[in-house]
Amino acid sequence: MTDEAERQTLARIEARRRRPRRRLTEEHVTLAHGAGGSSTHALVETIFLPAIGNELLAPLADSAVVACGSDSRLAFTTDSYVVRPLRFPGGDIATLAVNGTINDLAAVGATPLCLSAALIIEEGFPIATLEQLAGSLGAAAREAGVPIATADTKVVERTKADGLYICMAGVGVVPAGLTLDPAAMHPGDRVLLSGTIAEHGMAVLVARGELELEAEIASDTAALHGLAAELLAATGGVRCMRDPTRGGLATTLNELARAAELSVVIDEAALPIRPVVTGACELLGIDPLYVANEGKLVAVVAATDSAAALAALRSHPLGRHAAIVGEVRAEPPGMVVLETAFGGTRVVDMLAGDPLPRIC
Amino acid sequence: MTDEAERQTLARIEARRRRPRRRLTEEHVTLAHGAGGSSTHALVETIFLPAIGNELLAPLADSAVVACGSDSRLAFTTDSYVVRPLRFPGGDIATLAVNGTINDLAAVGATPLCLSAALIIEEGFPIATLEQLAGSLGAAAREAGVPIATADTKVVERTKADGLYICMAGVGVVPAGLTLDPAAMHPGDRVLLSGTIAEHGMAVLVARGELELEAEIASDTAALHGLAAELLAATGGVRCMRDPTRGGLATTLNELARAAELSVVIDEAALPIRPVVTGACELLGIDPLYVANEGKLVAVVAATDSAAALAALRSHPLGRHAAIVGEVRAEPPGMVVLETAFGGTRVVDMLAGDPLPRIC
Repeated sequence: MTDEAERQTLARIEARRRRPRRRLTEEHVTLAHGAGGSSTHALVETIFLPAIGNELLAPLADSAVVACGSDSRLAFTTDSYVVRPLRFPGGDIATLAVNGTINDLAAVGATPLCLSAALIIEEGFPIATLEQLAGSLGAAAREAGVPIATADTKVVERTKADGLYICMAGVGVVPAGLTLDPAAMHPGDRVLLSGTIAEHGMAVLVARGELELEAEIASDTAALHGLAAELLAATGGVRCMRDPTRGGLATTLNELARAAELSVVIDEAALPIRPVVTGACELLGIDPLYVANEGKLVAVVAATDSAAALAALRSHPLGRHAAIVGEVRAEPPGMVVLETAFGGTRVVDMLAGDPLPRIC
Repeated sequence: MTDEAERQTLARIEARRRRPRRRLTEEHVTLAHGAGGSSTHALVETIFLPAIGNELLAPLADSAVVACGSDSRLAFTTDSYVVRPLRFPGGDIATLAVNGTINDLAAVGATPLCLSAALIIEEGFPIATLEQLAGSLGAAAREAGVPIATADTKVVERTKADGLYICMAGVGVVPAGLTLDPAAMHPGDRVLLSGTIAEHGMAVLVARGELELEAEIASDTAALHGLAAELLAATGGVRCMRDPTRGGLATTLNELARAAELSVVIDEAALPIRPVVTGACELLGIDPLYVANEGKLVAVVAATDSAAALAALRSHPLGRHAAIVGEVRAEPPGMVVLETAFGGTRVVDMLAGDPLPRIC
């Protein structure tokens, strides 16, 4: 090991040691535990990993990658959808479930093979609404070209759910030779984002009608497997990809920075965001970096490949507004830093608390 | 076509025509729609199959069988678990989820590969209970030798769930050349059952403490992939297998009879059932044929192979009380008939209504 490499390793170990050790101080589950940010991570690290952890689960990526036979690898993912309201501009719980599951497969580079849908329905739920949402489930699956192969229906008594929850899992096939892993990130890599941020979370928030805010914001829910495939076909320099949903772009980049033990520096001026979304976020005092996206891809790409990668994203309808939004650096390891449009910098941590419960 | 075959075909068509056409007359979802019996079937056939149906989903088996690449087939299944109470003699919601998902894979002859777990937790749920149930999830997965590869946690507000729901999916590998399908059933085939019935449902019912009944009944929850593998290794004569959960043995046999367009005749005297379960069922006026099992396998086996199949089941700890409980006949097609211990016969239909909501 060179002196420089040793110094870097020691610095990373020191940084990890300094990072506060996760503890669960609460005695009861809070909404923040489901928000996808630091509380969710604490719950996962203190409760779930010790109990159910194994080498497949340990990477905590969007999908697990599982060897199947001697020469094939499957991607496997699950998510429950508990979004409120069930319908919102741009989509509904069913389109969200289909697209969100496909996106978790796409983020590990997999070609989606099939989906499962398990519905938990509250007694008294209108059959007509169920029929519409089932139609939406089918339409989203057909549009994406990924069949729902297996399903289940449970009904719970009145007041024991909130209308309808959808639990979805998905299986995909990982192309031979492809390995996407934050561990492959290097200082100098570029961070690409496929489009404008914070639309899904703000659309759902506005749709609740609880705020004195009327803004025409539609969810960005979309299936990204086509976009991801084009990116991977265009360049061999993709280190890893993520789907920045709960906790927003900030939380996703923090997960990457921690996994890589490197730093991610975001260029605020380069972040694509629609003015109406900026306006709504400012009005409500919400940082758009923490708001869920449901149709955006984050990709870390080798610097030399970043122009080709950007062109590939922009050539796809879902990547028209793609941008290079940041860079990987060595220091400070495990952290995300924002370089503001005014020339300052600030540390961007994971989402803490839950400003927007039940957004997906 | 011979005269006899033609007569049989016409008789089946006539029987199908006579069978009442499924319609959904309700305007709202009821608990019966989640019970796994005739209302669930009506919901599936009128709402879900038209909306999301495809050739993978259409067989409505315990697992879908999906081609993956040129020479391999995956089994894929999902179920939500909403059992109340969360813990009961013999198990809890977590063991039920792991075993139930594995059993759906085992029923199509698959070797389980991995599981997913998506938890929907109610705000305020005790962390200590969550930790215990997570431990139980991990223990059940390790005992079965099937890892939980991917997981998700969502939290909903107080009163928007009933403590905890677990949604699980599973992936398995179907051995080359194996096809289990009710369409392969023939008149003369034997119906084998791996052990005593109705224990899970009655254990949960007693555990609720709402009945003036104290009986020492433990759930039969168990992972059946080992048992299924031994059965398949012992004989090539297995036509199809099922996991008789919601709706009980009666509903499962009705599903097989309808799918095969043949009749299943059950020999009441041959049905294995523990006396304490018979007693509890009689006291509550519940027919044990409709009560959920969570560790039993139904197998339809060619008559010539039935002795070997029975021996294989009985040689496994989970099949000690296995029995040949019935026979496949040509008439009346699509129906299940019970030959009572007293020499009479009665038609056994699918479960109607939901005498035991949220049993799994």
